Amino acid sequence: MNIETAYFKQKALITGGMGFIGSNLARRLVELGADVTILDNFDPDTGANSFNIADIHGQVRIVQADISDEAGLKDAVEGQKYLFNLAGQMSHVGSMQDPFKDLNDNAVGQLKLLDVCRKTNPKISIVFAGTRQVYGRPKYLPVDEKHLLAPLDNNGVSKRAGEMYHIVYHHVHDMATCVLRMTNTYGPRMRIKDDRLTFIGWWVRQLLDGDEIQIYGDGSQVRDLNYVDDVVHALLLCACNPIARGKIYNVGGEPVSLLNLARQMIDIYGSGKYAIVSFPENRKRIDIGDYYGDYSLIHSEVGWQPRISLRDGIQKLMDFYVQNKEHYL
Amino acid sequence: MNIETAYFKQKALITGGMGFIGSNLARRLVELGADVTILDNFDPDTGANSFNIADIHGQVRIVQADISDEAGLKDAVEGQKYLFNLAGQMSHVGSMQDPFKDLNDNAVGQLKLLDVCRKTNPKISIVFAGTRQVYGRPKYLPVDEKHLLAPLDNNGVSKRAGEMYHIVYHHVHDMATCVLRMTNTYGPRMRIKDDRLTFIGWWVRQLLDGDEIQIYGDGSQVRDLNYVDDVVHALLLCACNPIARGKIYNVGGEPVSLLNLARQMIDIYGSGKYAIVSFPENRKRIDIGDYYGDYSLIHSEVGWQPRISLRDGIQKLMDFYVQNKEHYL
Repeated sequence: MNIETAYFKQKALITGGMGFIGSNLARRLVELGADVTILDNFDPDTGANSFNIADIHGQVRIVQADISDEAGLKDAVEGQKYLFNLAGQMSHVGSMQDPFKDLNDNAVGQLKLLDVCRKTNPKISIVFAGTRQVYGRPKYLPVDEKHLLAPLDNNGVSKRAGEMYHIVYHHVHDMATCVLRMTNTYGPRMRIKDDRLTFIGWWVRQLLDGDEIQIYGDGSQVRDLNYVDDVVHALLLCACNPIARGKIYNVGGEPVSLLNLARQMIDIYGSGKYAIVSFPENRKRIDIGDYYGDYSLIHSEVGWQPRISLRDGIQKLMDFYVQNKEHYL
Repeated sequence: MNIETAYFKQKALITGGMGFIGSNLARRLVELGADVTILDNFDPDTGANSFNIADIHGQVRIVQADISDEAGLKDAVEGQKYLFNLAGQMSHVGSMQDPFKDLNDNAVGQLKLLDVCRKTNPKISIVFAGTRQVYGRPKYLPVDEKHLLAPLDNNGVSKRAGEMYHIVYHHVHDMATCVLRMTNTYGPRMRIKDDRLTFIGWWVRQLLDGDEIQIYGDGSQVRDLNYVDDVVHALLLCACNPIARGKIYNVGGEPVSLLNLARQMIDIYGSGKYAIVSFPENRKRIDIGDYYGDYSLIHSEVGWQPRISLRDGIQKLMDFYVQNKEHYL
């Protein structure tokens, strides 16, 4: 199905819509003529930021609620055709500091959300934002969806529980659910406040502040990055395609070493420096080593592939923060 | 390490110790000269039954508490050398009726237990009772530990979260944890009250009552059964062996078709009849089809293999219930 027609005048709900990926998705849905509702608990630790939707503020409905809040959820879910389920606790280090909050947000909350959908809107089409963290340390590269799941931290456990519930609700209750396992997403509107969420956001902040980028390990670790527009495109392709129901797909992108990434960021920004430092103890144990994903399944079934080069993506990223830095500090 | 010396005069805690496997383990530990504490919430739905430990009542300490009860747990965990972690919600159908209780018991409760151990007794050696339900419908047979994990019901999700937390606490906090993925365990002291837990328990009940055994499907489905003493032996071998730390092992046994099993049970009991009936709707969707496990990993690393033949096991099972039926109705 064509994205242009699939979302025009259709009702779409985005949980976590004030955050990084959610707000970019909201903007794209508004462009496509969708009737957009954002449900968000406005927890700044997860990246919620009212500036993220400042330019589309009058064009989206905003519900301030947690996905564990059944009444708010029921209201928001009713009558929706699509649900982009991006709410969650994403901090790996945070999940080790408060594993109960992490489990409550990512497993109990997701189960509540699915159960509300089952009861009030069982035909809703749901795409859930999973994470490549569920694989743990790769046994082979690129990592495909058949790879062993051995998460290294509490966040990998709770996010895995969340994705499993989506698949179980498809099998048992015939619900239209799909899971995308996200890798490192970057782009405008990501959180750069501190190093709690993504390392890329934190590096952006260090560049902007004129501080040294700190690369943990030896810099040779490989990651694959997705520019946020590519991730938004994957979400949109999956929600409207019946082939995707009950499926788990990796997204993924060009592999790049951390050292190479830091150099490109400095080069594009025009200044900056980096240092290679040893891992802090709380990160070393939960680091996954090299990772890049095999995204051939979503490519063959849904037609997705990344379209924005790393260079172009970094350019857009840095341009955005040069212009809007003050809203993200 | 030798089981005879590993447990003599050592302190061992069994969560879920009033239940089927837990009470058989408690009896064996008492025989081995261990100092045994049982922690159990006495929820009869999980199989807790005071008759299960009637003959060793004075020889074990009993704490009535839930694993979510931090104070009770802390008390029970302190000073223990071993923890056999068998508490949990095991009903597949129950997990579909009340997914929140299932998640709370099997994920939140297990996380609390691990966190209490980390804080009060980080050297304790823990073996967790996992389940083959985490695999979902087998892609190949026998199923080894590398098999894809795609649970078909909520119970598979919550039990998987519980086992993942055990492994994460090993990697991140250096705790001595091990997971056994149980298959169909049978033997004296299993719950035969209704069809809520195991189909074997329910068949026993139907035989004893002179009712027809109802075999769902066409009777050709294959399962592997473990006599409870073999499972107890696996638990004891793993808790005292450092090789098992951070590991997940299948147990497993001889494959047998349900039809063949029913015939053997009737033959050994001396009377009875069976009927092949179609699946009830709530069970059909969560049925896993054929299953038997590959237990070569635990065999090679820990030296475990099943020792009791199906025929001998069924004989002991039926003998027990002929004698003790009234305590299990």
